Amino acid sequence: MNFDFYNPTRLVFGAGSLSRLGEVVAGLGKKALVVTGGGSVKRSGTFDRAIESLKAAGVEFAECAGVEPNPQISSVARGAEIVRREGCDVIVALGGGSTMDASKVIAAAALYDGDPWNLIAHGQEDWHIPAEALPVITVPTLAATGSEMNCGAVISNDETKVKSFAQTESLFPKFAIVDPLLTLSVPKDQTAYGVCDIITHVMEGYFNGVDGTPIQDRFAEGVIINAVEWGRKAVADGGDLEARTQVQWASIVALNGWIQAGVHMVAPMHMIEHALSAHHNITHGAGLAIVGPAWMRFAANHRPERFAQFAERVFGLSPEGKTPETLAAEGIDAYIAFLKEIGCPTTLSEVGVSDELFEQYAKDAALVVHDANGNLLGRPPMTGDDIVEVLRSAL
Amino acid sequence: MNFDFYNPTRLVFGAGSLSRLGEVVAGLGKKALVVTGGGSVKRSGTFDRAIESLKAAGVEFAECAGVEPNPQISSVARGAEIVRREGCDVIVALGGGSTMDASKVIAAAALYDGDPWNLIAHGQEDWHIPAEALPVITVPTLAATGSEMNCGAVISNDETKVKSFAQTESLFPKFAIVDPLLTLSVPKDQTAYGVCDIITHVMEGYFNGVDGTPIQDRFAEGVIINAVEWGRKAVADGGDLEARTQVQWASIVALNGWIQAGVHMVAPMHMIEHALSAHHNITHGAGLAIVGPAWMRFAANHRPERFAQFAERVFGLSPEGKTPETLAAEGIDAYIAFLKEIGCPTTLSEVGVSDELFEQYAKDAALVVHDANGNLLGRPPMTGDDIVEVLRSAL
Repeated sequence: MNFDFYNPTRLVFGAGSLSRLGEVVAGLGKKALVVTGGGSVKRSGTFDRAIESLKAAGVEFAECAGVEPNPQISSVARGAEIVRREGCDVIVALGGGSTMDASKVIAAAALYDGDPWNLIAHGQEDWHIPAEALPVITVPTLAATGSEMNCGAVISNDETKVKSFAQTESLFPKFAIVDPLLTLSVPKDQTAYGVCDIITHVMEGYFNGVDGTPIQDRFAEGVIINAVEWGRKAVADGGDLEARTQVQWASIVALNGWIQAGVHMVAPMHMIEHALSAHHNITHGAGLAIVGPAWMRFAANHRPERFAQFAERVFGLSPEGKTPETLAAEGIDAYIAFLKEIGCPTTLSEVGVSDELFEQYAKDAALVVHDANGNLLGRPPMTGDDIVEVLRSAL
Repeated sequence: MNFDFYNPTRLVFGAGSLSRLGEVVAGLGKKALVVTGGGSVKRSGTFDRAIESLKAAGVEFAECAGVEPNPQISSVARGAEIVRREGCDVIVALGGGSTMDASKVIAAAALYDGDPWNLIAHGQEDWHIPAEALPVITVPTLAATGSEMNCGAVISNDETKVKSFAQTESLFPKFAIVDPLLTLSVPKDQTAYGVCDIITHVMEGYFNGVDGTPIQDRFAEGVIINAVEWGRKAVADGGDLEARTQVQWASIVALNGWIQAGVHMVAPMHMIEHALSAHHNITHGAGLAIVGPAWMRFAANHRPERFAQFAERVFGLSPEGKTPETLAAEGIDAYIAFLKEIGCPTTLSEVGVSDELFEQYAKDAALVVHDANGNLLGRPPMTGDDIVEVLRSAL
């Protein structure tokens, strides 16, 4: 367990914290680029309240609206262009994971003269890791990606259909202002997909990390237990502020590095899902609800004890009289039952994806994060055939 | 659950990480003040290896040796004086909690012209909260106080026998270099006291925080479960590197704010213990093994369900057929049995403390952190009589 850990993001958490936005931004700059998505922040009134807070603090602003659910590098380029043209010196991300991820890369692209895709293109010839970026304040309106308090960003390339990511220190938000009130209006389906995203973030480290991390195991199990309990309540009653608060806190700790410290996580479920949603218009969390269980059945064959521990500690299933294999399968079944209960799809046919491009997804999934043999990293590493087999089991 | 969170300390964790000291210090300054305690780092060879790493990186150094187990403000003044005289620009804390705490305040005192006690004297007339400090690198040689990755420091006043603390952003270490190999030579008794300190840090938030923090509850329980399991092993075999590693990781997460985020923790067990060890030469962790269980019995009367949850989740005790009160008492008994098993004292008579100064301890304990009525903060708040009663039950 040798590792470095660093996370300098200042977190401002709690119902009503949006009102502190202006004060926070004023401490970092004079003119903000406010980045938003498809318009839900305007319909809900969140945008107006954010602007009001900025104005009260004497901060000017420009806007970059319309960032896509799977954010495209073209939107990043557009945002960076507005920053330069308008002379913005701070970025406010007001929206879900796609808005926050785009904002982080806009903040770096605004200070970089080359093609913004170079900031993303892991391991490719023109890869440029950004050493500096404008200050970013994340204001999530959805509990899901955990992007609010980490330095990662997932971006797609509209032309090449490649979905990849940037992850480096300069992309840490300066502040995350996390106000559960902003999530009260999130619809049932998006709430459920967010819960699945949260749980899958935790699972990636839990199932794909190194051995010998018993404290992190308990942290991970604790987050999943609560994401299930409070996620169920948030889906049942979107107006339940306590449930929204717990789910949003789960979203943060699921991917701010606390649970993953020393775990050396890799994320095969995410890589496979990214390959899918780069080709199809699937919400990331919904894609994970399909890929996750299929991957779990595959991985449990290789490591049944770990999945048995998951079944026992997270779903409280009794190990008595069962083999690890049986207990592991019961735990995965319990997870699938939960996903169905909250309304997530769990098969590809439910989202209209056939086996036509399976070979392509398999190739794309292993494009960025692979071992020397080209296999997708994870426990166990996956060949292209393994990925196709997992996808086939999810049809 | 409204709160702000911030912890910018860079953590370098793992066996062998001491070798990175020079490289880290060289990035922060040219001449280091190396602060040490009673000499164990010299006997163990740790000091020589640290100096070797500094020299290899071209860093000069001066030394401030002999910081006491309960660090005195006079040692802080002496350290700050050496910094000024020798022109040091970075502080390396090489030792246990007392060395790290003294180092943090030395770093602030070196940039402050007034009486260093003003940096500590909470709420008193001359209180001065330090806005700046020299960079500090903590290198713990004992898993206990968690001081390595937080901005707190407990300091005693030799003259007035008051033990108080400083806690502010400028005191965050820039780096914590945490190498479990350095703890292999810690004797059995100090190992056990460290484990008790770790567990008590977690308990303070768990038993004295606000309601409605279920994720933090699971984090807290997870750390205590592992501190018990691996603490037992580290005491049984000091050379067990895996046990030392897990205990040291527990020490960090027990007090770096992750578990306490949103919990609004207060620390009555610590306040009572500080009053004791300000008057007697008791190792802090040993004092906590005495005060902790006595306080728990008192507090369980007011909140049996919480202590029943502790019994069930941490010690795996079955709630079947039991009242919360009975289950709570069984959990406290299990904790006391663990403390005895690893060799901690659990009564005042074992450390030679009588009831002579009970009234004084009660007054001192509530001196700094109290409510409007002067009661020591906690759940429940404690009158002077409550504190005396708890101490009497520990005789």
